Amino acid sequence: MTEAHDAIEVIVAKRDGGTLTDSQIDWVIDAYTRGVVRDEQMSALAMAILLNGMSRHEISRWTGAMIASGETLDLSGLSRPTSDKHSTGGVGDKITLPLAPLVAACGVAVPQLSGRGLGHTGGTLDKLESIPGWRANLSNEEFHAQLESVGAVVCAAGSGLAPADKKLYALRDVTGTVEAIPLIASSIMSKKIAEGSGALVLDVKVGTGAFMKELDKARELAETMVALGTDAGTRTVALLTDMSTPLGLTAGNALEVRESVEVLAGGGPADVVELTVALATEMLAGAGVTDVDPAEVLASGRAMDTWKAMIAAQGGDPDAPLPTARETHVVTAPSSGVLARLDAMAVGMAAWRLGAGRAALGDAVQAGAGVEWHARPGDAVSEGAPLLTLHTDEPARFERALESLEGGFDIGSAYEPTPLILERVD
Amino acid sequence: MTEAHDAIEVIVAKRDGGTLTDSQIDWVIDAYTRGVVRDEQMSALAMAILLNGMSRHEISRWTGAMIASGETLDLSGLSRPTSDKHSTGGVGDKITLPLAPLVAACGVAVPQLSGRGLGHTGGTLDKLESIPGWRANLSNEEFHAQLESVGAVVCAAGSGLAPADKKLYALRDVTGTVEAIPLIASSIMSKKIAEGSGALVLDVKVGTGAFMKELDKARELAETMVALGTDAGTRTVALLTDMSTPLGLTAGNALEVRESVEVLAGGGPADVVELTVALATEMLAGAGVTDVDPAEVLASGRAMDTWKAMIAAQGGDPDAPLPTARETHVVTAPSSGVLARLDAMAVGMAAWRLGAGRAALGDAVQAGAGVEWHARPGDAVSEGAPLLTLHTDEPARFERALESLEGGFDIGSAYEPTPLILERVD
Repeated sequence: MTEAHDAIEVIVAKRDGGTLTDSQIDWVIDAYTRGVVRDEQMSALAMAILLNGMSRHEISRWTGAMIASGETLDLSGLSRPTSDKHSTGGVGDKITLPLAPLVAACGVAVPQLSGRGLGHTGGTLDKLESIPGWRANLSNEEFHAQLESVGAVVCAAGSGLAPADKKLYALRDVTGTVEAIPLIASSIMSKKIAEGSGALVLDVKVGTGAFMKELDKARELAETMVALGTDAGTRTVALLTDMSTPLGLTAGNALEVRESVEVLAGGGPADVVELTVALATEMLAGAGVTDVDPAEVLASGRAMDTWKAMIAAQGGDPDAPLPTARETHVVTAPSSGVLARLDAMAVGMAAWRLGAGRAALGDAVQAGAGVEWHARPGDAVSEGAPLLTLHTDEPARFERALESLEGGFDIGSAYEPTPLILERVD
Repeated sequence: MTEAHDAIEVIVAKRDGGTLTDSQIDWVIDAYTRGVVRDEQMSALAMAILLNGMSRHEISRWTGAMIASGETLDLSGLSRPTSDKHSTGGVGDKITLPLAPLVAACGVAVPQLSGRGLGHTGGTLDKLESIPGWRANLSNEEFHAQLESVGAVVCAAGSGLAPADKKLYALRDVTGTVEAIPLIASSIMSKKIAEGSGALVLDVKVGTGAFMKELDKARELAETMVALGTDAGTRTVALLTDMSTPLGLTAGNALEVRESVEVLAGGGPADVVELTVALATEMLAGAGVTDVDPAEVLASGRAMDTWKAMIAAQGGDPDAPLPTARETHVVTAPSSGVLARLDAMAVGMAAWRLGAGRAALGDAVQAGAGVEWHARPGDAVSEGAPLLTLHTDEPARFERALESLEGGFDIGSAYEPTPLILERVD
């Protein structure tokens, strides 16, 4: 039983630059979950937190209180260690698809509870749902059984995990309080810690197509989340990775599944392979496995076997043809030279406007919609040759997609390569 | 028709330290009044305003938008100039009662739309309602007719004046966003400007019993409100006055009416007379009347005649006996010496707990309840002699009232007099 407080007392303490006590934090999260603290009170508190910040201890307690608002999974009965990954969201970020079966094929179980996409970055569940028959919702028993038998599960998070976060996230979305690092970090980490994985690797995106546009902000978020994971006993590291350029050669749902399967087959774009192997190495190390080379496992085809088993276990047919969009539109290179820049946000917005993403939770997405690009920054392009192919079921969407691509790429004579993996935070 | 905006855009602009545009301010106040901007959005904006401030122009526009959310009174048809007063609220602050008839007796009409008390400071309407028969609610026609015939009206503000403020005030009260000077100033001034008075004098209280405990904050509030009035074309000045000591010798409803009548009869406590005359002088000057001495008019009995007419015009019997509380409890001086301190907040809380004030809007108040003190700071007191008399209809209330008086006064050997009127802001 927590001590009794009142909402105004807690709001005023943070408003005036104070540190919330453990008891205040426990009370306000519990009372908000129960509806005793009202939305208009929590939004004032969220704004005060955004502007006045929280200490490491406050964020950790806040995260713990959100975890305590719901159920937590116990994976200690598994025969294998567990490791999970979370990405803060990027354009063309299909890494979970090859990564989860790869890590499982290396002997570490991956229990990934995932979400749907909103806005210009796609959601992993939306991508997997383009596979005929695949279903995102599993019972607790199915989840545990698949984790034991296949070693990898990517499925929808149930409503029982951190319900306080679910309510607070929806509130922040309409009150201009999304961009608070303590609230972002606690939102992500409350769900990931409740999931019960022994280790966690965070892929924190930086750049035009990412939520965090600047390296210092991304680093602050990464450090905050690593501290939260560590405080909760989850071995946590973060990689800061570039999201100025979209990942791979596709952004969309079925388009990204196809590209992921190419990676699992030993091919695929070099950046997707590089990031998949780097994250796998971290996930394995977090689980104590350092004697397996994920690059070799990927090349061996064993990860593909796990992929097929993982898809089949959730009702999907891994060998069925993937859906394609009814219409395509090709954008040709306006001049010859080197593709000097391809902007992640421009591509993400185009894919979203083509129907690959949703504007509001509950909207449907098109399985086949999205953008393919035929060159990556640094590649030579020829005037008149295809540069991008847009895919959609509704040709009326081309016009606005093309608008978002205006100014989204440069063709020049020089290209300055930038690293994909910028920093490691542990 | 204002330009279309959305709530998040406006919140984020202020959150990030920006200046809101006229169009954003007009839109957000109008949309909030209509329920398009939700309470949880307005509370986030209020917190951002509290923490990041507003420019003079923003506050002025915000006030104008709140005025535009409702009706405004047109007093230009009156045969006399108009002048009004607003107090930020103090303990024993019955000044409006002698002041309004005094200014009217000097030839300047006083159109005062007033409110009810909440918390430890009493409301003018609650005090006047202790007079048998007196009613606070007037129609627009009654208001104008009384202003023309008697020259003074103190009545309840209708719901048509600045409805945006009414809604926002209730929201701020539960979201820890009361203490924002731009919001306090615009709340007070939107109602006062909408009232249509040509001149306005603000009595901004400073000290333990006031909303503003510190002089610099009170001065900032006074300067902000004077600027707002000036920008709106209302001749506005402010006096900063002490509220560490309660005003006069009584706090309560009928108790304060009795004291006010003593002042109108040429007697009463010196501090009440001093402040009444000072505020009357300012109100008259604001209306262009500088050749009448309000102290003389008070002494002549003409203000008493106007008082009786003002009370009678609203159904009250100015000669009827005032209600008294059923029970009294005397607190005697614990030692002999000089009353060195009598704390306004302690007295205000005691009066409130005795039943003179309300905890929530809509609660009833007791007409006879309150506190009388038999000495003012600087007066000699004798051990065992009555120092305070508590009045209530419900003797169960004495205990908590006495608790609030603990530590509320000092008897010593020395007394450091402090001025009542601290500063003038114009």
